[in-house]
Amino acid sequence: MDETGAIGIDWGTSSFRAYRLEAGGAVLEVRSAPAGILAVDDGDFEGALEHLIGDWLDAHAGAPVVLSGMIGSRNGWVEAPYLPCPASLSDLSAGLLPVTLARGRQIHIAPGVSTRDSGGVPDVMRGEEVQVLGALSSLDDAGPQIACLPGTHSKWVKVHAGRIEDFSTHMTGEMFDVLRRHSILGRTIEHAAWDDASFLAGVARSGQPGGFLHHAFGVRASGLFGELPPERAGAFLSGLVIGTEIRAACQSLEVTDQAPIVLIGDQGLVGLYQSALHHLGMPTEPADRHATARGLWLLAEPLQSARGEG
Amino acid sequence: MDETGAIGIDWGTSSFRAYRLEAGGAVLEVRSAPAGILAVDDGDFEGALEHLIGDWLDAHAGAPVVLSGMIGSRNGWVEAPYLPCPASLSDLSAGLLPVTLARGRQIHIAPGVSTRDSGGVPDVMRGEEVQVLGALSSLDDAGPQIACLPGTHSKWVKVHAGRIEDFSTHMTGEMFDVLRRHSILGRTIEHAAWDDASFLAGVARSGQPGGFLHHAFGVRASGLFGELPPERAGAFLSGLVIGTEIRAACQSLEVTDQAPIVLIGDQGLVGLYQSALHHLGMPTEPADRHATARGLWLLAEPLQSARGEG
Repeated sequence: MDETGAIGIDWGTSSFRAYRLEAGGAVLEVRSAPAGILAVDDGDFEGALEHLIGDWLDAHAGAPVVLSGMIGSRNGWVEAPYLPCPASLSDLSAGLLPVTLARGRQIHIAPGVSTRDSGGVPDVMRGEEVQVLGALSSLDDAGPQIACLPGTHSKWVKVHAGRIEDFSTHMTGEMFDVLRRHSILGRTIEHAAWDDASFLAGVARSGQPGGFLHHAFGVRASGLFGELPPERAGAFLSGLVIGTEIRAACQSLEVTDQAPIVLIGDQGLVGLYQSALHHLGMPTEPADRHATARGLWLLAEPLQSARGEG
Repeated sequence: MDETGAIGIDWGTSSFRAYRLEAGGAVLEVRSAPAGILAVDDGDFEGALEHLIGDWLDAHAGAPVVLSGMIGSRNGWVEAPYLPCPASLSDLSAGLLPVTLARGRQIHIAPGVSTRDSGGVPDVMRGEEVQVLGALSSLDDAGPQIACLPGTHSKWVKVHAGRIEDFSTHMTGEMFDVLRRHSILGRTIEHAAWDDASFLAGVARSGQPGGFLHHAFGVRASGLFGELPPERAGAFLSGLVIGTEIRAACQSLEVTDQAPIVLIGDQGLVGLYQSALHHLGMPTEPADRHATARGLWLLAEPLQSARGEG
């Protein structure tokens, strides 16, 4: 008997990662490729999918196939509309968009999630919602929990009773990148160098008066005064940007320091955020490394049950 | 008799502007060129000066020559050290660095001004201090006054009793530029378009909770939702960045809304800041267009008096 309960795929802007999952969600096999949606020629997503996991589709004809991430965006395969918060995994499952492959197999593309902040401005995510709900599904749910997914556009997500209540996005990684590559700050940064103490000094600086635009110039002025040498300036700027994000996100989502913040993502970035959050007196908890697979399984499960009942 | 009282030069990173001044400071002649210090080959500043105003030096042998701006920086002619705040025009005059030209004529390069913010981080300016003291010298000085010099690195300067008490720099123009040129926001901006109402909407947005990194991403999300079309997004982003600067600067310098803020600089930018400040309920006053010339004269005057007495 085929032990494969589902095929789950996290297909983002720059990467593709497929999981072959046991009923229950345990990971049987992982396959990843630098085949993000931007790398797919002429929008031939079906061709890419067949190329990457066609053998899985052949071998596991009965397994539901669920795709999350930017594959469901306007620039992806088909646009799966955003579900407004609050949104649970059941809501996401109900919003799956079916696509029929040339071989006749039906696959399902997950919707993204949207919210509006207190100013009425929209915010969106695609893929992170599955990671977050997967990560938090195995934790105690005594009260609201916060997950943080650091990155180019970091997400802070508030979950309660299995539902994404609210979230906010911060242009943190991209800000760090454009400032050190394209602004005057780049001239006083030795890009290859790193220094943990300077990173934490940047985190501390982000809490001082003056505002981000002034703090950014301060990196330059401190360099001119020899108080922030090039080999420390990159780490300091990183801490400054990340600290600015953390303080703003905690305020927006009304984060109290009671429950640990669940960190999801790349190990290096998670380590930085962990150190920044601890510096600010906030406990953290790393997500299970199979959080995404678990979220994809929970998304696919209703399809499998439906099939089982059919 | 030669009516020329002094020759004053504002020599910045990207531009050169020389004023032939009457005793008393009235402008007799202005000469400007795109010959900023970055455009001077092999650091031959003396050659550039002779080329640009050699005839003035010939014709007005007795006039003191004073230079302000980045010409006194590490990348300029000679480095004139920064004077710490508080600094008056007399302090700046006393700090002038004499340089003797090959022709035997002595000229004088002005120092910059430095401060430290409440976090102890240094801040610097070169050239703006002369503009500000020139602009405010003709105004009533009942209490502290604030000047704002919008630009790549905007300056906010607090002056009281003829002394620069404090100031702060904000990486505003450069932030706008790197975000629209090098970040994802550029994709949803029609660069040639402008819309005043969207500029003011951006100014208003900067006062909402969420923080600058979130607000920046909001420009993208609003674009995705069709709520901020490309032809309005550039003006909105400009208002967002400028509004963020104004709010932070007013807080840092403890600006009350009593005295009008004196705006100094390029007419277009001054117009934008005027409209943003009025939107925030703060009165403004444009600086006299000869503020820089007046500041240079006040800087040169003691030299002329000394010469007259000698």
